[in-house]
This record gives sequence, structure tokens and C-alpha cells, in this order.
Amino acid sequence: MKKSTITPLREKLSEVYDLRAALALLEWDEEVYMPPKGATARGQQRATVSALVHRLMTSPEMGRLLDSAEADAGLSENDKILVCETRYDFEKARKLPESFVQRFAEAQSQAYQSWTKAREESSFARFHPQLQTLVHLAREKAEHVGYSGSPYNALLEEFERGMTTEQLTPLFAELSQRQTALIKRVGASSNLEEESWLHQIWDENAQWALSLRVLGDMGYDFEAGRQDKAVHPFTTNFGIHDVRVTTRISATQLFSCLSSAMHEGGHALYEQGFREEDARSPLAEAPSLGLHESQSRLWENMIGRSAAFWAYGLPLLRQFFPGQLDGIPMGHVYRSINRVRPSLIRVEADECTYNLHIILRFEIEAALLDGSLNVTDIPHLWNAKMKQYLGLVPPNHSLGCLQDIHWSHGAFGYFPAYALGNLYAAQLFEQIRRDLPSLWKDVQEGNFIPLLGWLRTNIHRVGRRMTAPQLIESVTGRPPEAAPYLRYLEEKFV
Amino acid sequence: MKKSTITPLREKLSEVYDLRAALALLEWDEEVYMPPKGATARGQQRATVSALVHRLMTSPEMGRLLDSAEADAGLSENDKILVCETRYDFEKARKLPESFVQRFAEAQSQAYQSWTKAREESSFARFHPQLQTLVHLAREKAEHVGYSGSPYNALLEEFERGMTTEQLTPLFAELSQRQTALIKRVGASSNLEEESWLHQIWDENAQWALSLRVLGDMGYDFEAGRQDKAVHPFTTNFGIHDVRVTTRISATQLFSCLSSAMHEGGHALYEQGFREEDARSPLAEAPSLGLHESQSRLWENMIGRSAAFWAYGLPLLRQFFPGQLDGIPMGHVYRSINRVRPSLIRVEADECTYNLHIILRFEIEAALLDGSLNVTDIPHLWNAKMKQYLGLVPPNHSLGCLQDIHWSHGAFGYFPAYALGNLYAAQLFEQIRRDLPSLWKDVQEGNFIPLLGWLRTNIHRVGRRMTAPQLIESVTGRPPEAAPYLRYLEEKFV
Repeated sequence: MKKSTITPLREKLSEVYDLRAALALLEWDEEVYMPPKGATARGQQRATVSALVHRLMTSPEMGRLLDSAEADAGLSENDKILVCETRYDFEKARKLPESFVQRFAEAQSQAYQSWTKAREESSFARFHPQLQTLVHLAREKAEHVGYSGSPYNALLEEFERGMTTEQLTPLFAELSQRQTALIKRVGASSNLEEESWLHQIWDENAQWALSLRVLGDMGYDFEAGRQDKAVHPFTTNFGIHDVRVTTRISATQLFSCLSSAMHEGGHALYEQGFREEDARSPLAEAPSLGLHESQSRLWENMIGRSAAFWAYGLPLLRQFFPGQLDGIPMGHVYRSINRVRPSLIRVEADECTYNLHIILRFEIEAALLDGSLNVTDIPHLWNAKMKQYLGLVPPNHSLGCLQDIHWSHGAFGYFPAYALGNLYAAQLFEQIRRDLPSLWKDVQEGNFIPLLGWLRTNIHRVGRRMTAPQLIESVTGRPPEAAPYLRYLEEKFV
Repeated sequence: MKKSTITPLREKLSEVYDLRAALALLEWDEEVYMPPKGATARGQQRATVSALVHRLMTSPEMGRLLDSAEADAGLSENDKILVCETRYDFEKARKLPESFVQRFAEAQSQAYQSWTKAREESSFARFHPQLQTLVHLAREKAEHVGYSGSPYNALLEEFERGMTTEQLTPLFAELSQRQTALIKRVGASSNLEEESWLHQIWDENAQWALSLRVLGDMGYDFEAGRQDKAVHPFTTNFGIHDVRVTTRISATQLFSCLSSAMHEGGHALYEQGFREEDARSPLAEAPSLGLHESQSRLWENMIGRSAAFWAYGLPLLRQFFPGQLDGIPMGHVYRSINRVRPSLIRVEADECTYNLHIILRFEIEAALLDGSLNVTDIPHLWNAKMKQYLGLVPPNHSLGCLQDIHWSHGAFGYFPAYALGNLYAAQLFEQIRRDLPSLWKDVQEGNFIPLLGWLRTNIHRVGRRMTAPQLIESVTGRPPEAAPYLRYLEEKFV
């Protein structure tokens, strides 16, 4: 019998994936449970493990295993895709020297600690040196990786394969023009009085319990995951059967914990939905961050802010906060969670303004990368752009350019995926509504299983077998475009 | 300038230690927070990371770095010790093939899951196959490592360097003879009526808060550690500044959580007390498990069960459990926590009977290793020996041979260190009382700082610079012996 070329490759990949899982656990723990004095050692640990992952992924042995598999004419279609994706990862990783990977990981860890303090103290100066280092490293990374056009393209590629500044610029121009106009039309319909019931203290334990209840109803498997608290909510996984979400709770923000849980829940359902046989391989991954984000947006917004959802959700609210919603009509609750009002914080932004927060960040990042903006000037530019797009100026940097965790992770090029996630989600959701005529009725009854089933079949189980644009086109019949999102917004808000 | 031979060795060792920290985190998380379905993948991850640790530790590069450092005539005394200890670890690790390390880690993980279920169901049969595998692997390990005398010596060496079955057998014979006689003498003094106040429900949150209060007073740094709950309490570290303890809480067992916290706290103070400059090197380690255990025993028993401690502790109890100790005299509390009564569970055993639980396990392990005992026969032999030493027969296996986590970790040869810990602790404690004449007065006032200072100077900061017997002799002027522990017991209980 002919010797398999795939088995030894899979074994090698499993090693890489196990070590990545250890790295993900070091990161999860750092943000969830690590005591503060553990930070320095944790940074070293992450740096060491990152470098080892990189060393394994780029090892001559991996190269030889890939060569053999590519030369094997007897591979199944599935194995061919695995080999092809592994080759992509291998070549990408080989462009980054191990010493760079290690320096980057160390800088990330220091920057995260520094950002946490800077945000507490609202001091950009406190974060400045670490951010400066990360920008330098990001430029260095772009040079290692290579790019055509803007150096920012090298970073976009990491999160949204194939996407370029040149494609995003006109797309974002259309979105910002149409969404700015929309906000003006919708603006007058906002009604503060209808939201006055929200100004109560919402017991944190009840918020927590409600978020668990809704996650469970969505189909999140708590035997294969857990929810914890973190400053900045995120989802991580250490395998298909251990996918964890985090959330935050504020006693004065009723919807913050729930929305965050549904958002991260959307990510987590995706990761709990990969195929068992893809475990510990690159196929058990989303093809892009934007597609991953489409799953969180779909659950958080298309579902979680729909009238149908609140037919199910309002009775739950009344149950978890007894007496606190007496006499509040459904319309007030629905319009409160769908209020359109330009605001300072991205993660709390409504659906009409959200993309503008992203476009602002995209413009700043692209300018940082091409050298036309200095780190020192970020706060000023941030505030100027907030004024331009949203008519607001942050009173301090915690509510401005220090609000997001991403830059502390050196994750430049990440933000655009959030806007793409909105577009993908809306485009998929039009198809879902065609395919599942009883969707809204099911959602009203708190039955999310048909929706989850559709996503499992059409999105989750595909893994990385198609790119994001291929998958969108294969499912909806059209390449990714802005129109469905704009239709969705106009239908809902005008 | 001559090129350092130590710096590259230290860097390589740091890599090993960082990866070990990742492994320790995978283990901590598995026992503390991991969702159940994550178990299979976690086992694979531990196996992969264990194998990588082993590969790094035994790499030809490590060998070359060691050779260079050994050939360097200009090393400081401190660096010489580092090189010598690294050589010891290197040679030990080299004896185990990487494939063995990986198989062992996989078997451990499966056995841990199986033991958890077996203990719940009190079914030895459920654990049997995994335990059988681990015994086979332990024998295989002994053959790889080599030994003179009993194969069990190879396993003892891992936990208590230099200790042999031949040394333990007469030592344990003396202890079992003297302690059995002591129990008989003390037995009649036990008074159930004085303990009747314990039969209350003790609020679990208050127990938790009390344990945190006492840990803090002991000098445990919560900025460099944390306490969580686990089925079987343990201490772990991911560096000197991230040393974590776990405890368990039972609403009907007032002292269980506190004693466990003090026990693990003793371990944790040791690990928080290594020298900063030893971080990420083999010198930031205890020379033996027995010496580590001496620190936990000293805090749990010599301090935590002393009359002086309860002068501080009783007011705390009254504060944390208001009304529940009204009219209970100090004497009842002191005698309740020091009751001598043969019982089934090792971790709840009193100071007079504890070592007998260990001797039983030692005899079973040694017999498993030399092949004179089959796994199938463990329950029977366990029960027979319980009858012989303690006059009791467990009503089920959860209270018998399934009670301890150790075998599920394949940690044969570990238990004897607990008894040695008692001996070391008593011998050190005699010296502490000589060196700190005001010890009891300080303890009465809840001032543990002088004691911690003594331990820091004499024990913790030494790290692995001396073996356990060397350290005991250097501090107390005598080699390790049983007499101080027997004196301690007789003085306290007769």
C-alpha cells in the first residue's frame, strides 16, 4: 500500500494547532484571570510560544511534507484544499523571521498592559511609546510580508484575505456618504422620553443570568464552552469543543451585557460548528475575519435588535428584572435598543452609525502605515474625524482613541473587517429570509434552531474551504456588495 | 571580551521554562475552568506541549550549551550550580524518549477524566483500564530511567531526589510503630461532645472570604496569585509572580477550606519567595517535593493547628460566622481542629494518623511497581491495610482507593514526600522556635511576618542550591530524622 502523504502532514499541523491552543489559553487567561504581577512573565511566555509556533509552522520538515503532498496525484479534493491552505499559511509565515515574531509578541504584551492603564487614566501619553513601537513593528511586518499598493494592504491580507486599501476606499466612501445621509433623515425620529425607563440600576447577576439564558437558547453549547468577564469582550477557542466567550457588565447599561453576549455568541456558534474531521487543521477556521464578524453581527443585530426577537426577549426581561419593566410597552423597548444616535464608543454604536466608527479607524491606520500620520497626532485626528462623521468630540481619550483594545494587540488592519462583517451579514440575511420563510415566527418563539441549522450548513461547516467572497457568492448568488446592508438599514430605520 | 557561556544557556532554559508555564496553565485550566467537552483536545494539547518541552530540554543544542558552560573555568559559584543542576535535568530527561513523554501525557489526561467519573460513581472498574495503562507506563519509565534496588526507586527519584525504598522502609516502619502506639494512647481523650458545635451549615461565601483573609495575613501576595476552586486543591505557578492556589469548600466542613488554603498557601509562599534572578531557571524550584511539602505542613499544622493561631483565629471565626460560635470556648475549637480519630480520607486526617495513610499508599505503589500486586487487587489490599493501620474499612471506593488524584496523574512515588514533609517541617520548626523566641506571641496577634521572613531567608531563597537533606542539615545542624516529628506529636497530643 502506498504511504500516505496526508497523515504525516496532518500530524505536523496538529502539533502547530495544539501549541496555538496553548498560546490562546495564555492570552485568554491574561485578560480574564491573571493576577497583575504576572504580566511580565506572561509576555515572555507568549513571546516564546509564538516563536515556537512560528518555528514549527515554517520548519523545513513542514516544507518537505507539503512538497510530498503536493506531488501526490492521489489526493482527495478535500485533502487538496487542506494542502493548498497550508501552503498559503506556510509561505505567509516564512516571510516573518522568528525573531520578529518574538519581538512582536513581547511588544503586544507590554502594550496591552500599558493600554489598560492608559485607558483607566485617560492618558494617551502613557500608551504612546508602546503604540509607537507597535506601529514600527507593523511597518516592518508589511515589509517582510510584501505588498502592492499601500503597505497597509499587507496587514489587511492577514485579516481579510485579498482585500486592499484600493478596494476599501471607494466602498467606504459610498457607505459613509449614504450612512451620513441616513443618520440625518433618521435623527429627528429619536425620542429620549421613550428611553427614560432604561435609567435604572440593572442587577449585574440578573444581567449575567439573562445572557447565559439567551446564549443557551441560541444553541451555544455550555458543555463545550463558558462565559467569563473581560474588560474587552472576545471569543477564543482551544478546539471545536472548547470555545469560550467573554462579556462585560455595567449596572446602568441594560443592553450592554446581552448584546455583547449575543455578539460573541455568534462568533462562538461559528467555532463550535466546524467539522469534527477538520479539528486541529487550518480548515477549522473562518476564511476571513469579516466573515467571522458577519456571524456575530447577524446574531447581535439582525436577530437581537429585531421586533421578532423582542417578542421573545421582553418576557425574559420582565422575568429577570421583576417589576422594573412594569408598564413599559414593547415599542419603547424595541425603539430603545434601536435608537439611532451618534455616540463616542464604537462597541455601543447603533447600526446606522457603526460603520462610520470603522471608517475613521481605517483612515487613521492607513495613514499611520504609509507614514503620513505620526502616533503623536492620533488624538487630534481622531477627534477631528469624530466631529466630521458624527458631530461629536470625545471629552477625554478613554472615550476617544483609547477605547479599543486592537491597537494594543498591534492588530492594525483588523477594523475594516467589522464593516465588512455588517455587509456580509446583511447579504446573508436576505438569503436566510428567502430560505426560511418562518424565520420571524421561530424567533418570536425563541426557537433559533432553524437559523442555527442554516448557518451550520451554509457557513460554519464550510470552514476555510472557500474564501469569504466565494462563500458569499455561492450562498447568495452575488459577490459581496454594500446594497443589501443599505437596504436593510433603510427598511428598518426610515 | 570573552563570550559568555552562561547567557545562551540561560536563554535556552528560559524557553523551556516558558513552555512549561504554558503546560502548567493548560493543567490549571483543565482542573479549574475547562468545560467538560474540552477534555479530549486538552489531552492532545498537553501531550504535544509536554513532548515539545522534552524535545527542547534534551536538544543537541542544550547539550552543546551545557558542554561549553562546563568547560568554562570562569564561572561564578552560582552559575556552576545552575550548570550542574541543568546537567542533572538534561541527563534525566534524555533517558525518556519523546514518544514516551507524549504517550504518558495522553494517558494522564484520559486517566484524570476517568478518575473524576470513577470517583463520582465510586466505581473502581471505571478507572481500572486507565490506571492499568499508567502502571505499565510507570514501569516502562523506571526501565528508561534506570535504578538500583527496587524499580520504585526510579520514581521516588523524580519527587525526592536520592531517596530509596530501602531507606524509606525502616523509616516508615519506625513511624508506623510509634504512631500506632500514639493513637492508642491518645484515642481515649477524644471527645465528641466538644465537637458538636461543628455540626452546623457554614456559609460557603464566608468560608471563602475567611480563607482569603488568612492567606493575606500569612503574606500571600494576591497581586501575584489568586485562589480558585478545584476538586482536589493544588498550587501551581507560571513564574514567581503568578503563583495560584486552589481550595474546596463544603458547607458542613468548617475547617476543610481554611486548612486547605493554609496548606496550599504554604506551598505558594515558597514559590512566591524564590529569588528574582533565578526566574525561568531550574534554581527557582524546590530541591524536592518533600521539602515543598514541609512548607505546606508547617503552615497548615504547626501554625494552623496551634493554640496560638486560634487566639488569632477564633475572633475571625466569630466575625465571619456571626452568632454561630456564641458560647463556644477556645478549648473546644482547639481540640476540634486537633481531634485525633482514625478516618478514611487522607487529606482530612489528623496529625497523628496522617503518615499511616501515606505508608499504606507507599506499600501499594512499591508492590505495583515490583509486580507483586495487580491493579485489580488494589481495592482489596487498600481495605485490608486500612483495617490493619487504622481499624477502618471504607464503605465504598470513593472513600477508599479512589480518593486521591495522584494515580490519575501517573504520579507514583509522590506520596512518600508527604510523610517526609511532616518530618522536615517538624525538624525545621524546632529550629524556628529556637530562632524566633517571640513566635507564639506574634502568631497570637496574627503577625506571621517574622515566620515568613525566617522561611524566606533560610528556605525559600535557597531554591535548588542545596538538596533537601543538605538544606535541613545546614539549617538545623542534623540530617533529616523522625525524632523531631515524634517529639512534636507526643508533646502536643499526650
